[in-house]
Formats: sequence, C-alpha cells, structure tokens
Amino acid sequence: MGPEPSSVGAQLSLPITFLSDFGRSDEFVGVVHGVLAKLAPGSRVIDLNHEVSRGNLRAGALAMTRAIQYLPEGVMLAVVDPGVGSDRKAIAAQTPWGFFVGPDNGLLSPAVAMVGGATEIVSIENPEARIPSPGETFHGRDVFAPAAALLASGDAALGDLGPVVPGEEVTPLVLPLADVEGSTVTGEAWWVDTFGNVQTNISPDDLDQVGISHGQYLTVKVGSTLHTVRWVTSYSDVTDGEPLVHVDSAGLVALAVRGGSASEDLSLGEGVAVTLAGSR
Amino acid sequence: MGPEPSSVGAQLSLPITFLSDFGRSDEFVGVVHGVLAKLAPGSRVIDLNHEVSRGNLRAGALAMTRAIQYLPEGVMLAVVDPGVGSDRKAIAAQTPWGFFVGPDNGLLSPAVAMVGGATEIVSIENPEARIPSPGETFHGRDVFAPAAALLASGDAALGDLGPVVPGEEVTPLVLPLADVEGSTVTGEAWWVDTFGNVQTNISPDDLDQVGISHGQYLTVKVGSTLHTVRWVTSYSDVTDGEPLVHVDSAGLVALAVRGGSASEDLSLGEGVAVTLAGSR
Amino acid sequence: MGPEPSSVGAQLSLPITFLSDFGRSDEFVGVVHGVLAKLAPGSRVIDLNHEVSRGNLRAGALAMTRAIQYLPEGVMLAVVDPGVGSDRKAIAAQTPWGFFVGPDNGLLSPAVAMVGGATEIVSIENPEARIPSPGETFHGRDVFAPAAALLASGDAALGDLGPVVPGEEVTPLVLPLADVEGSTVTGEAWWVDTFGNVQTNISPDDLDQVGISHGQYLTVKVGSTLHTVRWVTSYSDVTDGEPLVHVDSAGLVALAVRGGSASEDLSLGEGVAVTLAGSR
Repeated sequence: MGPEPSSVGAQLSLPITFLSDFGRSDEFVGVVHGVLAKLAPGSRVIDLNHEVSRGNLRAGALAMTRAIQYLPEGVMLAVVDPGVGSDRKAIAAQTPWGFFVGPDNGLLSPAVAMVGGATEIVSIENPEARIPSPGETFHGRDVFAPAAALLASGDAALGDLGPVVPGEEVTPLVLPLADVEGSTVTGEAWWVDTFGNVQTNISPDDLDQVGISHGQYLTVKVGSTLHTVRWVTSYSDVTDGEPLVHVDSAGLVALAVRGGSASEDLSLGEGVAVTLAGSR
Repeated sequence: MGPEPSSVGAQLSLPITFLSDFGRSDEFVGVVHGVLAKLAPGSRVIDLNHEVSRGNLRAGALAMTRAIQYLPEGVMLAVVDPGVGSDRKAIAAQTPWGFFVGPDNGLLSPAVAMVGGATEIVSIENPEARIPSPGETFHGRDVFAPAAALLASGDAALGDLGPVVPGEEVTPLVLPLADVEGSTVTGEAWWVDTFGNVQTNISPDDLDQVGISHGQYLTVKVGSTLHTVRWVTSYSDVTDGEPLVHVDSAGLVALAVRGGSASEDLSLGEGVAVTLAGSR
Repeated sequence: MGPEPSSVGAQLSLPITFLSDFGRSDEFVGVVHGVLAKLAPGSRVIDLNHEVSRGNLRAGALAMTRAIQYLPEGVMLAVVDPGVGSDRKAIAAQTPWGFFVGPDNGLLSPAVAMVGGATEIVSIENPEARIPSPGETFHGRDVFAPAAALLASGDAALGDLGPVVPGEEVTPLVLPLADVEGSTVTGEAWWVDTFGNVQTNISPDDLDQVGISHGQYLTVKVGSTLHTVRWVTSYSDVTDGEPLVHVDSAGLVALAVRGGSASEDLSLGEGVAVTLAGSR
C-alpha cells in the first residue's frame, strides 16, 4: 500500500521546498502537503510558489534559480509537468545543496547546475516508493511527494527509489544567453513579476563589455520602438511614472517603472527580445 | 477569557488539516492559524484549500472525501458555513481517522462516512472552549479553531466541548448517485478543477454494468448534444485538443481535453447532468 | 556573507507572523520563508495575509490591529513598503507582545500601540544582520526577514541590529477617528472584506453617545443617498438580500448585506465617508 514512515528520526528530517503550477483553487497543493506530512512528519515544508503559469517549465526553472541560495538545504520538490502521462521519467537527483525531485523535462536542470550539478540521478520507479492510485496517477501526490518525503526523512536513500540515470540522458533546459555584439547587447525578457517589473537575461557584465556604465542613459529597443532610460541604483532615483534600468535583487539587468508597470509601458512580455545600447 | 494551552505535551499534538471558503484576500485564514498556533503550539497545520466557492457545501465535502486518505490522521477543521449566525450547531466528531470539527450543515458528513463513521459527536457549547468575541462571533476563529486546537493538543477530550448529539440528529449531505438504466449511465459533473477537467459521480463499475469497457468509444450526452469520446488510460493517449474519458486520480469517471478545458468544450459545469452510453 | 543561525536553541525559537503586499503569483513570499527557515529553523511561521493591496499602509496596519490578539506572542514581520529604495529606515521594536519588524512608514504603529507601545526601537543597520544582495536590495528578503529570524531564534538581541531610534522619530500612522456631533456619527469605511462587508471606524459606544441603540433602525448616509438599515446582532436577523448594521467580530460597527455585498449595494468603498443617525 505504498511507503510508510519509519517511527524514528522525525527530528532529523530535512526541510522540503515545494514549487508547482497547481494553483490554489483546488486541493492539489494541500493533498501533496498531506502526503509529505504523513511520510516525513518531521520535515518543515516551504511553499516556494504554486502560481507558475501552467506548464511553463522555464518560468518554474528560473524561479528556482533565483530562490535556491535563500532556501534551507534539504529537498526541492518541483512539479511543472506539461508532459504528464507521457513516458518522461520521474527523477531524483543528489547535489551539494541536497536533493531535487521532479519530472525529467528540464525543469530541475538550471537550479541543479547552479548548486554545482548532480552527483547521482535516479529514475523513480520502485513501486515501494510510490502510492498506488485508484485511477490515473496524480504524479505530484503519488510519485514526487513520496520520493521527496522518503529522502527528507531518511527512510530511503537515493538508490532505493529506482535505477541510476546517466547525467547525459537527463533532459536539459536551454536558457537563451544574451548576445553581446559591437556596442549593443541583445537579450530577452524572461520574467515579468506581479508588479510589471521585467527581468532580462542580461547581466551587468554584459553592459560593461559594451561600455555602458552605471548612471548612464541607455537606448532600449523593443520591436522597432526606442526608449531612453537611465541606469540607476534604485527606484527612488527616478520620479513617479519614470522608467529605469537597474540591477535587480537577483543580480540581473531589469527594467522597471516607478509606481507603474515596465512590462505594459514598454510592451515587454516574457520572451520578448530587447536590445540595449549606450545613448549619446 | 477563553481557552489556554497547557504547558506540556506540545510534542504529542495531532496535525490539523484546515479547509474553508475564506479565500486569501483577507486575514481570515491567518487569524485562524494564529488561534491554532496559540492553543496547539505543537500541531502542524496543513491548508487543504481555502478557495472553496463561497458557501458551497458540496464542493467542500467532496474535496475532503478526495483528500482524506492522503492526510495525516489527526484533526480536520472545515468551515464552509452559509448558515453562519443561524442556530445550526457547531459540532465535533470522533472517527477512526481522528476528529472532525465544523458546522452541522452536512459539510463533514461524506468524509466522516468515508473513514468509517463517527463514534461520538458533540455540540460545541462549553464557553470555556470558545473565545469570547468583541462583537459578532467569527465562528472559524472563536468556536471551530479553539475546539480543533484543544482536541489536537489533548487539552480537551471530546466530551469537554459540549453535550453529545445523537448521530441521527446530525445534518446529512445527500450526494446524488449515478443512475444505471438499460445501456446508459446518467450522472452529473460534480467537480470542475482549475484546468477544466470534469469529475463525475460515475464509477468505472457503473460503466462496466452497462457493458462499456476501457478502450471503447462512448457517447457522451450533455443537454441535447452528443459527443463521441474514447475511454483511455491517460492524457497522452489522445492528441492535443482531443477529449477523453478516463478514470481520474480519485477513481471516478472524468472527462478531460488534452491541453484544454472539458468543462468549456462540453458545456459541463458543476451540477450539470451527463449521460454515458456505448457508441457503435 | 550575512547572518548564520547558531547551532543551538532552535526549540526555543519564537513564532513569526508574516504579513505583506507581495501577492502569491511570484516566489517573493516563498523566498522570505526560505530565509526564515534558514536563520530560525525552530520557528513556526504564520502567514497572516499577503494580499494587502499594493502599498496600502492603512490596510496592512488595520489587518494587524484586528489580528494581533489572536496571534501567538513572538515576532511580527510586516512588509508593505511603498517607499522601498528611499531613505526610510528599517526598524525593529520591542513591545509587551514581542517584536515588530518592518519599514518605518507607519505600518507597524497602530498594532504596536494596541499591544502597549514599544519599549525600545532600533534602526536595522548592522551589516552582520543583513544578507548582501547581488543587486538592488530586496528588503523583505535581505533586511526584514533576517532581523525577524535573528530575534525569533535569539541569535541577536534587539540592540545587535542597529542603533536605537527615539520613539518620537518613528513615523506614526494617523487613523481617522469617527466624529460624534449632535445626533449623528460620521466615520468612514476602512475595510471592505472579500465578501463585500464594510467595517467602519465607528464603535458601538459612538452610537450609544448619540442615543442609537441595538435593535433600532438607522439612517445611513453615503454621499447624498440615504438608506434605512436596522442594527441587529447577526446576519440571520434579516432576510436574504437585506442590509444590516451590526457590531462585527472586531468590535466595530459594520454594514453588511445578507448573502450580498454591502460595499456594492451602498457604494461604500474603502475611505468613503458614512454618516449614521437614528431613524424615526
């Protein structure tokens, strides 16, 4: 009847951080919490975000890369799974940070790489580590949560979950790099937060390389439209309603509008290309 | 001044699972968590769902029946209460799974029945078990949360909360059964999840009885419209945008559209009748 | 590299209650939970509300005043911060209830006053108590969460966070008082909850003073429109769709419509003036 918690060792359980695209309108997140509480009663569970847009692997992967250094080492349980029901594997990986559990679709790859890569990866196939379903498998509840809980509680070692998967067989996630050419940097918007702030895949080093420095005005090109925006330290360096370029709290070049939405004002949705150049 | 936690035994506290229709835009859920933390400091609290549609007893009851087997045994605190302020009782029930606390309006009945029924039910009336309000009673905060916390911590026994209520005086919740007649099964949509998947009250056994088996095409009748849909195992058995019948992760017959919304495509909102028959 | 948790004393950690206007669509709330779990692994964290409307200090402050008596004594971490990036201070205050941590913009003032005032207030400036950011400071993550966690775990005393700030230099929040004049009380709507119930800043004592008593009909004036509404105990004292005046669960005079929205029916949004008088 599926995994059972051992009666000892609850105090030593690792914390589990949980990210998904389940939303909050149904009981999906709550049921996964139930499974974690049953199988890892000593583990604290942190909800990183459950509002990742449905099936958006890149958004889920980027949220993890931004967050990982602020999370307690332990187990990362991540479920964004557009291919649920297909034959993609369910995997668990050991890394210097701790364990990662989720679908083999690239979702975990950027955060795993960021913490130093996986030392071992397995395919979660052992029926003893899964909860049998009365119908279609709810992978979050029946496969991923039990695996995360067993690793967190120490009731299973990685190798108990299933056979080893060679690293080169694991699905990567290709994140676009910014393109530095001549006096311009071309990248894209890869996160629009709830306030309309736009994080790009451009680093301050990229701007350095093309001779743009802090305090300067930049030309921001979106489609065929040009905007002139100053690179400042903080929102308070501009007036209300004014756009700004700054290095955001994740260390990336971002566009914002004080008291407004850069995404709307500059027509910069996720995935849209943006070119930055010095302004004279 | 209401109940006080005892100073011992926090470690032995039962987990509490909390479901409501409070939503998240106000501090209602947070205040109930506060009361639980004050009175049962050793209890873990699991949020099952707080987005049950306002006053929808059946939606709340069904969510509990789907979830209960995945939740750690302990206390279920459920507040969906369209008759708040009327003279409906506040009840607490002991079951083989643990305790259930909520309004006496049918909300708890299906999940209580599913775990084997109540061995004892009381009406929460003891003023010592309630928190006095400066105005109108906020039942979640003042009545239900203290009762749940006192039971979880062991600071009160069931009988300390108030007088016994005979089982036959407790309000039931009538859930419609599917109707098997000749070669058709008529049931209804009783849950539409956030993805537009439609769970019915029809079981795979009902389909068996009328000679419909896995892999076959079905005629799905909604209003006067007929759809032809195949009974498959999983989403991946159909192409994008195609509808399917499957046994969902709760073990019930459900309609879905791969990458889409069955509720929209088939006009199947909660409570709408649906008739299934074999297709030739 | 910022604060580190001590290896002892996790069991004695104070609970932390967390309120913000971060919303749930990004990982902001989750990342703050991560920092709290890292630095105060023994602290329980209660989410009071993260849907405070963006930058609405008064809404955040009022939610805290309504909730504080129901929260376990410990640390209140509150982040509603329209002036982020400006030179407003980050403060931590000691009170008879416990610690309050947040921006010095008035947000904390009403709840601090309600629990008896601050015995000491400091400006959080010690770099050892902050997490260095790779870019712009995310104050919730880098300043407020570490301070709250260090206080909760006991790894820092208040004075370790930074220099003392005299109480008179702390930003107050002026909450409008109801105006009792002759036979009328004029106040305003200061909270509309998710159900459309309207809480005013009028107390039942204010009504007493002008000779209005429970059970009586009132004239409710909004703009130039008059409504006649009865002061009752509870929703169940009126019929469906009928408006009512009652003393709500926070002890304040409130307007509601049974099964409906008083805010819509009476055009009473937050901040709108309302005048109550006896009706003859």
